[in-house]
Amino acid sequence: MKAVLVVLDGLGDRRCRSLGYMTPLQYARNRVLDRLAAEGETGLVDVVARGIPNGSDTGHLALLGYDPFTCYTGRGPFEALGAGLDLRLDDVAFRCNFATVAEDGTVIDRRAGRISTEESRELAESIQTMEIDGVQFTFRHTVEHRGVLIMRGKGISHRVSNVDPHGKTSTVQKPMPLDDSPESIKTAQALEKFLEKTRQILQTHPINIKRREKNLPPANYILTRGAGRLPNLLPFEKKFGLKAAVVAGGALYKGVCRAAGFDVVNVEGATGTVNTNLGNKINAVIESLKTRDFVLLHVKATDTLSHDKKPREKAEMINRVGEALGKMLEQLSSDTYVAVTGDHTTPSEIGDHRGDPVPVLIWGPDVRGDSVTKFDEISCMYGGLGRIRGVELMPILANYLGTLELYGE
Amino acid sequence: MKAVLVVLDGLGDRRCRSLGYMTPLQYARNRVLDRLAAEGETGLVDVVARGIPNGSDTGHLALLGYDPFTCYTGRGPFEALGAGLDLRLDDVAFRCNFATVAEDGTVIDRRAGRISTEESRELAESIQTMEIDGVQFTFRHTVEHRGVLIMRGKGISHRVSNVDPHGKTSTVQKPMPLDDSPESIKTAQALEKFLEKTRQILQTHPINIKRREKNLPPANYILTRGAGRLPNLLPFEKKFGLKAAVVAGGALYKGVCRAAGFDVVNVEGATGTVNTNLGNKINAVIESLKTRDFVLLHVKATDTLSHDKKPREKAEMINRVGEALGKMLEQLSSDTYVAVTGDHTTPSEIGDHRGDPVPVLIWGPDVRGDSVTKFDEISCMYGGLGRIRGVELMPILANYLGTLELYGE
Repeated sequence: MKAVLVVLDGLGDRRCRSLGYMTPLQYARNRVLDRLAAEGETGLVDVVARGIPNGSDTGHLALLGYDPFTCYTGRGPFEALGAGLDLRLDDVAFRCNFATVAEDGTVIDRRAGRISTEESRELAESIQTMEIDGVQFTFRHTVEHRGVLIMRGKGISHRVSNVDPHGKTSTVQKPMPLDDSPESIKTAQALEKFLEKTRQILQTHPINIKRREKNLPPANYILTRGAGRLPNLLPFEKKFGLKAAVVAGGALYKGVCRAAGFDVVNVEGATGTVNTNLGNKINAVIESLKTRDFVLLHVKATDTLSHDKKPREKAEMINRVGEALGKMLEQLSSDTYVAVTGDHTTPSEIGDHRGDPVPVLIWGPDVRGDSVTKFDEISCMYGGLGRIRGVELMPILANYLGTLELYGE
Repeated sequence: MKAVLVVLDGLGDRRCRSLGYMTPLQYARNRVLDRLAAEGETGLVDVVARGIPNGSDTGHLALLGYDPFTCYTGRGPFEALGAGLDLRLDDVAFRCNFATVAEDGTVIDRRAGRISTEESRELAESIQTMEIDGVQFTFRHTVEHRGVLIMRGKGISHRVSNVDPHGKTSTVQKPMPLDDSPESIKTAQALEKFLEKTRQILQTHPINIKRREKNLPPANYILTRGAGRLPNLLPFEKKFGLKAAVVAGGALYKGVCRAAGFDVVNVEGATGTVNTNLGNKINAVIESLKTRDFVLLHVKATDTLSHDKKPREKAEMINRVGEALGKMLEQLSSDTYVAVTGDHTTPSEIGDHRGDPVPVLIWGPDVRGDSVTKFDEISCMYGGLGRIRGVELMPILANYLGTLELYGE
């Protein structure tokens, strides 16, 4: 027996005025999703906890059965893993942006004019490795203005604050220790020195000289955020008895899955954007199931459209995913379970994450079934799964697959 | 006010093809159980946790209000208590089988040809007590090929692996320490010596010489499993203010209840099998209620029939229990509550435990009631009790009986 878990990022929503007071899922009224709900079992998921708005990192950890409250420290390590880097458990990893920062510390552009991947890569080479106060710094560029920084060495800590003001203020923040430990203080100090050194190198880098000549904002600063350590997760295969793979566009999702020991399937055209190639992703799921028991299929665009406050386009995207799932169903063997849910609610009139629960359905040969016939936030309130927490989804699925060890005799 | 908790072992099930896609409970459609559901309050129980398949030992601990995740180490001590033995908290107890094992360690028969109680008793006398490495070994025969082993002494541990391969392989397993502690290592080593000594004694025992002459498999080995320590449980009477008794056939259920301080009522004809005398058990419940506030009535056969993959016979057994409960209701005083549930789900098309929730009903003078009129896995999804965990059942029941201490003022 096998299972596919489909996560539509930011799927949950609220009633939207522009959709006649329906949620995008209600408005979409997709025939495939409704069929799965009617034939399967439904419910609502509080992904991390009732009412608590969560990020995609903590949301995915929970949906894979790992309690983020006990294992999550920051997003950095998952971005690093997702970018294909390898991490040690005592490394401290950060997400980074190339940014344009004025002499007085004012952030002119958090993305350095959305500098190209090619330019960023060349800049990154000049600040690739550095040793400061006995700490090894490794910087890796990923996509466009984005990168990852890894600190490795004795006596360091992930308890350091964000340098990236991220819309909260307009000034670069000094990295500060988040507790009184010598490790946090040392880490903040070394990071500050690294940022100053890289600023000097970037400032006079030929790429930036050229950009200034073209009146483009120079990428003269590294904004760090999301400091974290890789959690020492019990491998998914050991925890649930399932050999697993992930089909996703975004680095973060691959990273969380890699931390749990998943195989990462790279799919052409899986971009993590609205233009993602759903057909290729479905093919990759079918192919992956030949040698695995469990595949996580992640679709990012539903969340992006919510952040862009486009409920109607979100509904259209839900319909596109529904149709793609319809084609997937035709190719699944009869002993396959399919679960569909989201990693958090992003109300598309607000454009930001909220802690409302997310609808979930489980479809497959041996579900008990319930009386719900539609897949949306309101109908699923009355589902047979009731109200579950994110970390409970995987035990429920693995129970259907019969791979869990008996507790007791 | 008093209460009877009726546990039908392995009651929960899934839709069965041979029952027209109904569960055995739906197929049974028992008038007494449906009446109790209609007049009472219903719900679903996740006995140990959502999706987690559990054994009868952990299931009963949870249903009696004791969290198995914090108090359970293994089944051995409950079997020992159920067999009437007394245990100290630092004893380590095992379940045992007399088995037939070849020279090379191959298990020829895990039950030594289902050797008789009489022969086993005589064999057991020859290996009753032994001292090895300062550890006292006590072996007691129970029924047929079954027995219990108790280790008593300083510096021992329950963290030793099963010797009984129990269907997983065909070879006797060497007892191994399950952690690096000197206690676990010492226990495994002493147990290995005990098994070798008993093998020598059993091999040449007159009973086995006679069995070989009759071409019967000799009972020449003790297979141990379920190593555990007795948890130090807060007595049930102290915890819930209820003087309690158990009416059950199987030793395990008596053992769990004894660990919680219940009186064990031994009933003639209560065999823990399909042929159990339900009439006698009901009489014992009525009799026990005269001097106690709470009686646990356990019926094993529903689980046995599920393991035997006989959904129709399971439905018939449910009907027999329902009718017996009808007779019990006639004799209960009007201030008595009745709860009916199971200790886990055993889908009778699979023949093994699963983590699906189990239906529960509570009937009695002061329940609020709900709109559910049938007692089965699907109907109870919509019950007023909602979705509860096993450990929550007893507080809910004791609340109706009014015996719980006020928390706060």
